Amino acid sequence: MIRVGVVGYGTIGKRVADAIQLQDDMELSGVTAHSYHYRMRLAQEQGVKIFHLGNPESFAESNLELEGDIHNLLEDSDIVVDCSPKPFGAQNKALYQQHNVKAIFQGGEKADIADASFVAQCNFEDAVGKNYVRVVSCNTTGLSRTIHALQKAYGVKRARATLIRRAADPAADKGGPVNSIIPSLELPSHHGPDVRTVIPEVEVFTTALIVPTTLMHVHNLSVHLKGSPSTEEVVDLFRRTPRVRVLAGSDNIKSTSNIVEMARDMGFKRGDMHDICIWEKGVGIHGEELFYPQAVHQEADVVPENIDAIRAMMGISDMKTSMRKTDESLKPQHLKQATLMH
Amino acid sequence: MIRVGVVGYGTIGKRVADAIQLQDDMELSGVTAHSYHYRMRLAQEQGVKIFHLGNPESFAESNLELEGDIHNLLEDSDIVVDCSPKPFGAQNKALYQQHNVKAIFQGGEKADIADASFVAQCNFEDAVGKNYVRVVSCNTTGLSRTIHALQKAYGVKRARATLIRRAADPAADKGGPVNSIIPSLELPSHHGPDVRTVIPEVEVFTTALIVPTTLMHVHNLSVHLKGSPSTEEVVDLFRRTPRVRVLAGSDNIKSTSNIVEMARDMGFKRGDMHDICIWEKGVGIHGEELFYPQAVHQEADVVPENIDAIRAMMGISDMKTSMRKTDESLKPQHLKQATLMH
Repeated sequence: MIRVGVVGYGTIGKRVADAIQLQDDMELSGVTAHSYHYRMRLAQEQGVKIFHLGNPESFAESNLELEGDIHNLLEDSDIVVDCSPKPFGAQNKALYQQHNVKAIFQGGEKADIADASFVAQCNFEDAVGKNYVRVVSCNTTGLSRTIHALQKAYGVKRARATLIRRAADPAADKGGPVNSIIPSLELPSHHGPDVRTVIPEVEVFTTALIVPTTLMHVHNLSVHLKGSPSTEEVVDLFRRTPRVRVLAGSDNIKSTSNIVEMARDMGFKRGDMHDICIWEKGVGIHGEELFYPQAVHQEADVVPENIDAIRAMMGISDMKTSMRKTDESLKPQHLKQATLMH
Repeated sequence: MIRVGVVGYGTIGKRVADAIQLQDDMELSGVTAHSYHYRMRLAQEQGVKIFHLGNPESFAESNLELEGDIHNLLEDSDIVVDCSPKPFGAQNKALYQQHNVKAIFQGGEKADIADASFVAQCNFEDAVGKNYVRVVSCNTTGLSRTIHALQKAYGVKRARATLIRRAADPAADKGGPVNSIIPSLELPSHHGPDVRTVIPEVEVFTTALIVPTTLMHVHNLSVHLKGSPSTEEVVDLFRRTPRVRVLAGSDNIKSTSNIVEMARDMGFKRGDMHDICIWEKGVGIHGEELFYPQAVHQEADVVPENIDAIRAMMGISDMKTSMRKTDESLKPQHLKQATLMH
């Protein structure tokens, strides 16, 4: 049993903590919190140990029982998943070094915080046995999963992507834009270079804009391939690619809101969608260029990656076994024996 | 075992069908569909029987196995819950009469379609043994639950509510307004008179506006009471009222997006919130008037009402037993033995 601590209990941290509890080879040693939030009470009522990171007095009024501070959590953990907002992961690294505990950081941190950046199906081996690994951001994860599949199958001359990014997460009641479109004025956007921390051999250039929606990001891709597959062959490749879900034309799922509704209907906790979703009808080839639109659930797609990174760093599993185990564990109960919608 | 059919498998129908499957005194005899939708496949893969209502050829390409048509479903059901969009419920009534099957209609239909309009905690008795009952709309349900509690405890001279309505349901990718506020130009809005189909003795007047959001409705209420309770007493009353949830000030849940996030965190399927949520810090008394804001999850609050209406009409349970049974069944697995967040 690997004892895993989670530092930071926000959008990603709460999901990673839930996912750890679903693994039969891991145990959640506890989670940290800066200050009281109803989520901490929910966690405690489900038997999760809470450790403070900051000022214990901010919990005084909450009746929340604290198990100790982050040092106590680290003493009791083989590895931690740091889900703090940037740049707190980098600040926390010294603590992990001091306690000689392996650590996973999230994609908001700079790549050089870790020995490897990670997307399970692309470079699992790079993380094996490492002490510090960075799971890349939701957008980089999404780009890496599909571009890597194309690179392996046909070779990629160059990949271009326009990222249409969500303004804020669903729980946010501030953040923007409310009614405007904001182009990112960095060229390339940081996502392209970030993809190359995972698949360095591919030439990727990305641009990004933010739009007033909270549900998912959408990437609009154009990829020059070395090979010349048919549209059908590419769709079939995507169907066979792990953690990529092709939305069949006949299912008439037309928008990010439709995708989120499907995930809710399927019974995933919080309506999460861990797969990158590609609209089948949007896949097409024009000359040498392959075009496709894909949707990325920013709250969820990196969750299975964090679980696989734990297995890689602890050296207890190969890629395929870990990914299969992780994906099966995250399915809603009634889907566990079915091969549903995929 | 009561055999229940569900006619119409949209926002409400799919939830009611799920809820029926969670009851130990009911069995889902099947659901109907007009044409193929991925939801029907999801349902079939979970063992739900599908009956067509309309053109069976529209299912030809879907590989969906149909059990027959709506007549076959009605032959196999003791009662149906009609979740068709208005005015199809009224059109379907002749079928139910022909097959001598009891039927529940939704709040979009006119009140005179049924022998009683229904909110379990307000007028369960009115539905006992009836053949046709109408579960009122999400908004009317929300208003009825809290105003009825006030009426019972203190007496209500008059109730006034401004309804700030969501533009469309989350899955919608059309509907409006996108970026505007639309005042309802009917006075009163239909909600006030509709509340009186459930609690006729209370004088209620409502006005409504639609705003560009999809998550929940919010009602802003001002109620002239006959008694003179303190704010604390009213909050305490709401805490003790079934299917009403007081959002503690210390939990810092400030918006509809925060409420939906809490429901997701708690693990309710689809992130549903069946309770009417009242912000504790928004409850206040000014002179004779009580003010409070409440949020209504339009996709979910009527779901338990439909289940209770079945028990009332079949005469198999009293109000308290039915409501307790229903509420317990809808909780996520890990909350079943806890008294969480309430």
